[in-house]
Amino acid sequence: MNGKPRVAVVGATGYTGRELAHLVVRHPSVERPVFFLREGADGERRADCLTELYPELRGRGEAPCRAFSVDAVAGSGATVAFLATPHEVSAEVAGALVDAGMKVIDLSAAFRFRDAETYAEWYRLPPAPAALLAEAVYGLPELHGAELRGARVVANPGCYPTAVILGLKPLVDAGWIDRERGIVCDAKSGASGAGKQPKRETHFVEVNENFRAYNVFSHRHTPEIFGQLGLGPGEMMFTTHLLPVERGILATLYAWLAEPRSPAEIEALYRQFYAGRPMVRIWPAGELPELRHVVHTNFCDVGFSLDREGKRLIVVSALDNLGKGAAGQAVQNMNAMFGLEEVEGLL
Amino acid sequence: MNGKPRVAVVGATGYTGRELAHLVVRHPSVERPVFFLREGADGERRADCLTELYPELRGRGEAPCRAFSVDAVAGSGATVAFLATPHEVSAEVAGALVDAGMKVIDLSAAFRFRDAETYAEWYRLPPAPAALLAEAVYGLPELHGAELRGARVVANPGCYPTAVILGLKPLVDAGWIDRERGIVCDAKSGASGAGKQPKRETHFVEVNENFRAYNVFSHRHTPEIFGQLGLGPGEMMFTTHLLPVERGILATLYAWLAEPRSPAEIEALYRQFYAGRPMVRIWPAGELPELRHVVHTNFCDVGFSLDREGKRLIVVSALDNLGKGAAGQAVQNMNAMFGLEEVEGLL
Amino acid sequence: MNGKPRVAVVGATGYTGRELAHLVVRHPSVERPVFFLREGADGERRADCLTELYPELRGRGEAPCRAFSVDAVAGSGATVAFLATPHEVSAEVAGALVDAGMKVIDLSAAFRFRDAETYAEWYRLPPAPAALLAEAVYGLPELHGAELRGARVVANPGCYPTAVILGLKPLVDAGWIDRERGIVCDAKSGASGAGKQPKRETHFVEVNENFRAYNVFSHRHTPEIFGQLGLGPGEMMFTTHLLPVERGILATLYAWLAEPRSPAEIEALYRQFYAGRPMVRIWPAGELPELRHVVHTNFCDVGFSLDREGKRLIVVSALDNLGKGAAGQAVQNMNAMFGLEEVEGLL
Amino acid sequence: MNGKPRVAVVGATGYTGRELAHLVVRHPSVERPVFFLREGADGERRADCLTELYPELRGRGEAPCRAFSVDAVAGSGATVAFLATPHEVSAEVAGALVDAGMKVIDLSAAFRFRDAETYAEWYRLPPAPAALLAEAVYGLPELHGAELRGARVVANPGCYPTAVILGLKPLVDAGWIDRERGIVCDAKSGASGAGKQPKRETHFVEVNENFRAYNVFSHRHTPEIFGQLGLGPGEMMFTTHLLPVERGILATLYAWLAEPRSPAEIEALYRQFYAGRPMVRIWPAGELPELRHVVHTNFCDVGFSLDREGKRLIVVSALDNLGKGAAGQAVQNMNAMFGLEEVEGLL
Repeated sequence: MNGKPRVAVVGATGYTGRELAHLVVRHPSVERPVFFLREGADGERRADCLTELYPELRGRGEAPCRAFSVDAVAGSGATVAFLATPHEVSAEVAGALVDAGMKVIDLSAAFRFRDAETYAEWYRLPPAPAALLAEAVYGLPELHGAELRGARVVANPGCYPTAVILGLKPLVDAGWIDRERGIVCDAKSGASGAGKQPKRETHFVEVNENFRAYNVFSHRHTPEIFGQLGLGPGEMMFTTHLLPVERGILATLYAWLAEPRSPAEIEALYRQFYAGRPMVRIWPAGELPELRHVVHTNFCDVGFSLDREGKRLIVVSALDNLGKGAAGQAVQNMNAMFGLEEVEGLL
Repeated sequence: MNGKPRVAVVGATGYTGRELAHLVVRHPSVERPVFFLREGADGERRADCLTELYPELRGRGEAPCRAFSVDAVAGSGATVAFLATPHEVSAEVAGALVDAGMKVIDLSAAFRFRDAETYAEWYRLPPAPAALLAEAVYGLPELHGAELRGARVVANPGCYPTAVILGLKPLVDAGWIDRERGIVCDAKSGASGAGKQPKRETHFVEVNENFRAYNVFSHRHTPEIFGQLGLGPGEMMFTTHLLPVERGILATLYAWLAEPRSPAEIEALYRQFYAGRPMVRIWPAGELPELRHVVHTNFCDVGFSLDREGKRLIVVSALDNLGKGAAGQAVQNMNAMFGLEEVEGLL
Repeated sequence: MNGKPRVAVVGATGYTGRELAHLVVRHPSVERPVFFLREGADGERRADCLTELYPELRGRGEAPCRAFSVDAVAGSGATVAFLATPHEVSAEVAGALVDAGMKVIDLSAAFRFRDAETYAEWYRLPPAPAALLAEAVYGLPELHGAELRGARVVANPGCYPTAVILGLKPLVDAGWIDRERGIVCDAKSGASGAGKQPKRETHFVEVNENFRAYNVFSHRHTPEIFGQLGLGPGEMMFTTHLLPVERGILATLYAWLAEPRSPAEIEALYRQFYAGRPMVRIWPAGELPELRHVVHTNFCDVGFSLDREGKRLIVVSALDNLGKGAAGQAVQNMNAMFGLEEVEGLL
Repeated sequence: MNGKPRVAVVGATGYTGRELAHLVVRHPSVERPVFFLREGADGERRADCLTELYPELRGRGEAPCRAFSVDAVAGSGATVAFLATPHEVSAEVAGALVDAGMKVIDLSAAFRFRDAETYAEWYRLPPAPAALLAEAVYGLPELHGAELRGARVVANPGCYPTAVILGLKPLVDAGWIDRERGIVCDAKSGASGAGKQPKRETHFVEVNENFRAYNVFSHRHTPEIFGQLGLGPGEMMFTTHLLPVERGILATLYAWLAEPRSPAEIEALYRQFYAGRPMVRIWPAGELPELRHVVHTNFCDVGFSLDREGKRLIVVSALDNLGKGAAGQAVQNMNAMFGLEEVEGLL
């Protein structure tokens, strides 16, 4: 499908929905976006227009808001729907929207796994219809760009998986890591990743001046990372931590190399792997990205440091969990699906 | 009453309750403190001991926890009860505890107003029994120290009122302010002042990197401040703001003086007023306290700056809203009531 | 002058310079921008291009960097120069650039005062040439938009003055304030306002979890505010505070009204005053802007709250000190000077 | 040596010195402490007493300040000297103080390595005299408590090493870790660990809302950790990160176990190892300490999580870098050296 997308966004009141709203209303090629609210659900409230929800958008962009129903979205004239909805809602409504001729970009986990059992085991929710799962494309454009062009359903990746997979994939694919020793992935995220629903764990006083690991060995992004990288269960340890900042994920990735390598070799491997992919920025050998380089952008920045023996490798991968880790990546997927410039509306 | 207080704390799971717990278990003169939890209320959960609620206290202090009832407290052998309970609970239970022979230090607003109508108007709650209100002492030891010794019920002041009243009282009493021009009180507080209950306004992402005024012209501490200072309704503007920090209140107080004064005169006025009051620290003329000087302490620090004409005066008053603004002051009140050193357990 | 501005930026390494860089390289109408560095001065270092200074700009925009000299700028083909330089450098070089046929937008204080004595008194620096001072336009487009079109030298206002003047000007001009009682302006700013030079006062540990007033009665923005509002020295108190956030100014402005007014009257006054000025957003009566509504934007948001008697008025004015308070406003001035859309490159 | 220590503190103006000041002036057994300032060095300024340096200490404790010289310290009547001085100053002056009959607790790295070559390689400074190095005790009381009693020179450990060593030592000593696979130590610290000297990296705007790895493969605490744990160079990767908080270190430690273990076995190992050591708190299996549990304390909290197979182990070790990581540990060492209660003045 070519031409200017007509966009429907379902669910605009979480942080991902808000970010999507900010991106979509200012995207040069998006025509007449409409937002659909699941009133009463998850704190969503009625609103007639976007600036009622987000006064900070006044003067920057506007769009009508309507009550959500599959028929309302299908009848809206939209050619693509972003689902910023809970997993179970996405699983339930995506099919009807596809049947109505729309493309669907789902920001939940409902379509991230071909394997319905893995999904059921980690999410404890009924999976999406098998046929739809089978055709869904995992929307990491740097890895699956070619498939996105014709896709009807795109599963927008998780925020941690985007950072970790982009940071490790070139090394894993090249077979440079000594996988018998194992990989360690120590990931840290800002609090917007924990969602907008007020709860004890994300109360200001509990997060501010604090730092903690959470969901150790049980984070639901685990199977997504292992699956996309093709790692066996004992080959990696993945831990998530909560940073006292609003935005951003920084993952520190540790691997022992199978053979000694030089910094130049490793930098070349990354540059070659991501050649022509403008949203992944490789840092010069020995320089490492910081959170502040990527927040409020759609970039994933990757840098590394190698020990003097060329054996111990530390990779740092950083992105904005609401940008490249969620809403920005969804827009990048839309750009790819509609034949637009990959970076349009994202710089 | 002299001797070592035997302490009961009712309600230990809010931030004030937690601070009280930290202070009480390490107070040299407090004997066998007991905590009473209102299980099921306000997120209070069952616990057998304090370190179950606050693991950070392990190795520093311990105390048993029990289910709250008036009888349980009255039968506990305690000689003083701190009520870290909602206004309406304090209003309801204080009398029975007094009747059982205990002293009560109430951290709610239930006993802060002699005038039941003001309380009803601002708090929209049934007032405490009139007789008890009539005998309650407003527990600002620097102003009402003499009355505390024999008091049976002490109303621990609000956090903002403590900062504002201590900052302005010497000037108001001396008649140095040109009250026809009006006083402005611009107060800022850390987020722990908004309580432990998770809500939208105190979600990390909403407070962090943000700053806002709130409850303008409607903050419930307003009548307490006006009343204690003896100001008429049009004589002051009082506004509160939410700072992206955990603790601390800093109030910037503006007044035009009736007659020109020198910095030395003003400093002398403050020093004389607070002579012998160790918990109020007066800063040298022209130097102003910062939040970091008072957090995690029971001090209220007061400094000022005067313009060259000696007419425009800016006073800064700072304290820890959980310390001198709540739990610390409650302990200071207990010390005064039991004839202990005013600063015991507070330095 | 019409058409697409060719931009030179002098001084790109302070926070204002960085913000200007981010805005300029992505401004749709700016052609071939060039940056000039005062190497060796104020921590400026040699660089060949912008992304060497700001790696976070890689993939978003680029521009060459050159060593600064008046001749280099004059010979660069630029039609407008932004001076993000110290006051004394601006005062010294602006004339030569004007003589070379360029328009100058100066972000320092060198051209903010017609009255050279006031400048000398508060800044203790030699003033700019009198003729240039006389023709300089105070670049607050909402107040002086008409004069900007033909201006050769524009003095970009201070960050605090922009917030305070935009918040108070409609009321002052309308004569609604009881000036005999006096106005209080309690302003708070994020730490980027204090500049990029590391110093004790802006060390992380000194700012984080802290809050303090500074430069009381001595802040150099004082005469700028008093002058633009036409206030006499005893008619206002203006105080600045340091917030533990990166960006943003929020000013709480207090005034007693000469006559009782209704909220609707006040809202109408503001809306009328700023009709057709898209970068000032008036909030509905009783609603107040927060810092998070304006950071990373070029808006100044103004809201107010009135007491029940219609006499005591509290106005809140908020903006991003690096946006509308500095670099964004400079670009807005450029847009006005070149006949571009006022908001171009700023939404 | 028994009895009440008479304390001299050399260097009171860094963050460690300030923390030491707070602890020492309120330590029940410390008699007449005296502070010696190296005026002119590292921003140290002249002061006659401690509250001149730290106004927040007014009313809480006081001590005289004098100009530093070895003779002044030796002649002060002190029986123990804390050196909160640069490495090279400690290396130079410790011997003379020992010769004068004092005990020395050095907070620099000058005495942390028996091996002068390792010190010279990593610190690029001349080592302390060999005889003094040979007798210096590494002041981690939980490991070397017995040697502290008679020690004349104690090397207070680094902040990161304290957290990492206490977290890993029981496992390494028990031989439970599969060392051929390698250990990963991902450590994060608050900004006070970077010192009080203002610099670009610790400027508020650079740290706030940011997160970054630093000194990868080159942090000077590396050899201290490897040495104390007896690890070979390829057996561990150790990385440090800067958290946007004032205080605290949290280290996430990753190991593959040689044989499967149960959570109960691991918890028992830790509890047994630290039996009778009150300043290390072991968390129940599966529960992990957070930064907020340890800041402003002298505890090191250790918790762990084990995968279902009992093979992959994640240990979290947390402490306050100024407490157990520096000044608190120094006081704990003093307590041990003087036969006082280990926790005295530290709860």
